[in-house]
Amino acid sequence: MLKHDDLDKVFKALSDATRRAMVERLVRGPVSVSQLAEPFVMSLPAVHQHLAVLEDAGIVSSHKIGRVRTVQLSAGALAPAGEWLGRQRLPAERRLDRLGAFLADPPLSP
Amino acid sequence: MLKHDDLDKVFKALSDATRRAMVERLVRGPVSVSQLAEPFVMSLPAVHQHLAVLEDAGIVSSHKIGRVRTVQLSAGALAPAGEWLGRQRLPAERRLDRLGAFLADPPLSP
Repeated sequence: MLKHDDLDKVFKALSDATRRAMVERLVRGPVSVSQLAEPFVMSLPAVHQHLAVLEDAGIVSSHKIGRVRTVQLSAGALAPAGEWLGRQRLPAERRLDRLGAFLADPPLSP
Repeated sequence: MLKHDDLDKVFKALSDATRRAMVERLVRGPVSVSQLAEPFVMSLPAVHQHLAVLEDAGIVSSHKIGRVRTVQLSAGALAPAGEWLGRQRLPAERRLDRLGAFLADPPLSP
């Protein structure tokens, strides 16, 4: 069961361009923290702080082997947020959706 | 052109259960501020504060006729956030999408 609090944390975590860029990188596959930090001009503690927010929201997980911590996106973690957004469509937008679906796949004439 | 800042504000605005509930109500159509406030146990200033956050993010707009301020959802305002989320899919999830699309509409055999 999805708690309100979970969506709060997911949307809050995504409200920062650096954290979204990290998610975009992690979609391509797991990386070490230092690889993940590479494109950003920020201190390693700042990178860890962003990762902690993403981890607390359940968006990423990490594990350490030896001295290397690897970060990966948690499968399906963003789905509830995407589904919530998908439901917030105005009646006019819904009608356009139905029209699009109709044009893509019109019912057979009898 | 979408600025990083815009998505920051939209996701931040959605990181609160009360504001999401307001959006869910506004999807059904425009309402007065007092109608919108009705289901919530909070002061009118608190309601206005939440509305200001939604308005600043471009998610809602409002207009005043006489003494009544009406709030409405801005068409398409949530689309960039939904599209961003739609792009963050792991390779395994993409493969499942393609399989689903294939099963729904397999190519014709030659």
